[in-house]
Amino acid sequence: MAAKPPAQIRVRRHPERGHYDHETVYAILDEATVCHVGFLREGMPVVLPTLHVRVDDRLYLHGAVASGLLKSMAKGVPVCVTVTELDGLVLARSVYNHSLNYRSAVVFGQAYEVTDAEEKLQALRALVEKVQPGRWQDARQPNAVEFRTTRVTALRIESASAKVRSGPPVDDAEDMGLPVWAGVIPIQTVRGAPEADPGLPAGVTVPPYILGRTD
Amino acid sequence: MAAKPPAQIRVRRHPERGHYDHETVYAILDEATVCHVGFLREGMPVVLPTLHVRVDDRLYLHGAVASGLLKSMAKGVPVCVTVTELDGLVLARSVYNHSLNYRSAVVFGQAYEVTDAEEKLQALRALVEKVQPGRWQDARQPNAVEFRTTRVTALRIESASAKVRSGPPVDDAEDMGLPVWAGVIPIQTVRGAPEADPGLPAGVTVPPYILGRTD
Repeated sequence: MAAKPPAQIRVRRHPERGHYDHETVYAILDEATVCHVGFLREGMPVVLPTLHVRVDDRLYLHGAVASGLLKSMAKGVPVCVTVTELDGLVLARSVYNHSLNYRSAVVFGQAYEVTDAEEKLQALRALVEKVQPGRWQDARQPNAVEFRTTRVTALRIESASAKVRSGPPVDDAEDMGLPVWAGVIPIQTVRGAPEADPGLPAGVTVPPYILGRTD
Repeated sequence: MAAKPPAQIRVRRHPERGHYDHETVYAILDEATVCHVGFLREGMPVVLPTLHVRVDDRLYLHGAVASGLLKSMAKGVPVCVTVTELDGLVLARSVYNHSLNYRSAVVFGQAYEVTDAEEKLQALRALVEKVQPGRWQDARQPNAVEFRTTRVTALRIESASAKVRSGPPVDDAEDMGLPVWAGVIPIQTVRGAPEADPGLPAGVTVPPYILGRTD
């Protein structure tokens, strides 16, 4: 990092944990299923969770045309989209040095509504394929009404930063000899065995593209 | 629910998923390790992740005295604290009816700095005990400097709502006979085996209060 990052995205606390390269920011955005979108409603901050997907340098969100969040975003209001992956509980010898291992990414920008039909369709496909690769082809495609009543908004990832903590606790030198266990409890997000819908017709089995991804 | 919830906290999309009772909101806040705090910085929305803990009707956050987030909160600015627990990927027969199973809680309010030493100590204890029950007693307690350079802020949970989706996909009647597998892929957050700090003195083993909670 040669240049100092702009004030808006600079990681202020623990600047050594800050990352500003696309590779780091994109990897965190891609791994997280859910993001938290911050915007203003009547001058007050509101934070709502939603599904997101990144395609190149764009972050896509979607929702019903009636969704307040999507309506606001389509108007081009400033938003902040944040994702956080929790990786571990960091238990230090001292209470004070306890921490969490995590990777977070923060994206600032103004969203716009995606009105181009092809870009909108590709964004919807990317959202579904992110949640379950292989799913778009298998499921029934959107009809004209469904397509029209779904809103897609996009945000160009121009102003973004990541913050990452990993590794063991960092204790004060004078605490290192204390007879207190210290270390990390890893935290993982795992997929369970697929639970079939009770209304499935006989003979419809779990497709390989789903089984292949089950932990 | 007799009365209609106030506009600020009303769940607008899928109102049938909205919950306003303390029991539901508190349970979601208590289960989530990390929250996302939204506030204004120079008029723009900012969303940052942090650890939180609920004690009765108060939500406590903490950080270094130098932390920008905590500084802002201590000034009593309006904040929105949101937590989201992802429970499953909902794969419907149609692309359109795909969804996520989740529990989210949104709390609005004005934070204040906790200056009472006893309340501050209890909040720090609750934060540590939430991450790992039994830990506060075992670890080295905060000294005067550590205590002074940590800021604790609180938010009274007065204006809050929860949104919950659970269960199988809901498909259109005309799609029910399609030969497309539909169902839920459960998502779980699990703790792994403790990883000892490389600098531990010989003979310091993982205490029972940690092992008892490992999945």
